[in-house]
Amino acid sequence: MSVSEQKPSDLKIVTAAVIVIGDEILSGRTKDKNMVYLAEQLIEQGVQLREVRVIPDIENEIINAVNSLRKKFDYVFTTGGIGPTHDDITADSIAAAFNIEIGYHPEAMNILTRHYENSGIEFNEARMRMARIPEGALLIDNPVSKAPGFQVENVFVMAGVPIIMQAMFEGIISRISGGARMLSRTIGAGLPEGKIAGELGALQNEFPDVSMGSYPFFRQGEVGTNLVLRSINQLDLDRAFEKLKKILQDMKVEIVETT
Amino acid sequence: MSVSEQKPSDLKIVTAAVIVIGDEILSGRTKDKNMVYLAEQLIEQGVQLREVRVIPDIENEIINAVNSLRKKFDYVFTTGGIGPTHDDITADSIAAAFNIEIGYHPEAMNILTRHYENSGIEFNEARMRMARIPEGALLIDNPVSKAPGFQVENVFVMAGVPIIMQAMFEGIISRISGGARMLSRTIGAGLPEGKIAGELGALQNEFPDVSMGSYPFFRQGEVGTNLVLRSINQLDLDRAFEKLKKILQDMKVEIVETT
Repeated sequence: MSVSEQKPSDLKIVTAAVIVIGDEILSGRTKDKNMVYLAEQLIEQGVQLREVRVIPDIENEIINAVNSLRKKFDYVFTTGGIGPTHDDITADSIAAAFNIEIGYHPEAMNILTRHYENSGIEFNEARMRMARIPEGALLIDNPVSKAPGFQVENVFVMAGVPIIMQAMFEGIISRISGGARMLSRTIGAGLPEGKIAGELGALQNEFPDVSMGSYPFFRQGEVGTNLVLRSINQLDLDRAFEKLKKILQDMKVEIVETT
Repeated sequence: MSVSEQKPSDLKIVTAAVIVIGDEILSGRTKDKNMVYLAEQLIEQGVQLREVRVIPDIENEIINAVNSLRKKFDYVFTTGGIGPTHDDITADSIAAAFNIEIGYHPEAMNILTRHYENSGIEFNEARMRMARIPEGALLIDNPVSKAPGFQVENVFVMAGVPIIMQAMFEGIISRISGGARMLSRTIGAGLPEGKIAGELGALQNEFPDVSMGSYPFFRQGEVGTNLVLRSINQLDLDRAFEKLKKILQDMKVEIVETT
């Protein structure tokens, strides 16, 4: 979107946090894939991911994380802990965080009853746990394995299994109101970051609304730096980018790639 | 280690948190590799990773995360934000968190002066930023690119680039006093978790000091569940494992693998 197309309302900053719930991530046993997926998807929606917390399956930890982050950010997304086993305590913990009741949700019960009837699998007591939803919550559709997620106010509670979480997220995109889109441009430069640090700092002062990051990399024995510029203001972003490119060219630095 | 070899002092629970500092992780641009590395390494050292926070390069966020986690856990490890550029604000933020001064550390200055002399690279003002260390901090050796990390009390401040962070971590292992080692055994079972949930819950009640987790997986269209048992008590862990295996065998469930 060009600047001329950007309406003033687009410039509202909308923020989010992600809470990854699960001992299996903290033990290093399972590599989390949800954080990167959500980071990328939220940018697409004009939402800036500002914090991620990975916490264990402990009720107090979930309550504290949810209550501290839901007040601080526009949206909170949780993943994990909504299955049928005793260690799936996310729904109860969310109810406790909001101080609301939890019980069998009629629509969730219907969805699961039909699902298990159709597949000829017993709808046992453990599986009924997955229909326990905090009162007043809005269900989140699960097209993969049926057991729904749910939304309480600005907190979206989703499954931990990546394919299920991703399907759930696609179903809630319409409930998210994004703001200004964070735009970014990158220059991969063939120099150590210490060599450009002074100039980059001066450029940062010149363009306060463009956030400038410097990320060293090592490839096949060569030292390089990715210089990443981010802004919600396309015009300033492009100006800063051109100026930085010129600085590097004047320094006779190899520009590996630009995006 | 067998139970008979485990001394009472081994049974102390030692905990840690990791703080990943960096906009580039939250933007989804860079995939964090440090979390998984530290999770695995800490288990080896008898330290239980209890929380991970990913936060942006914002001083207040760093201060709040460090001050909340260093009081709650035995150790805190931070990664990222200790380079030469203006966006590297971790050292200053740590000094602010502990309310201590920060200045050029003589030994860090020596290390960097020698390094840049030897490599014929200018030791400019930006690079000198990497010698700014909170007062009283203990340096952490960086055998890769020389600029040191540092330790203030129970907080270890390391680089974000994985190969540097890993080299730093190896250098501080001797400063970490681990406690009871968390042992784990896993059964990969060819059944949906809802089918074993009731029995697993009952087994959990029977073995309160063995933490039992259930993690569904989908492989080539087949549904399965990894049942993970964790405990610092080898005897109870083995007992619970054998009992769970027997339950599955009695249910005629395929046991895909055990570890």
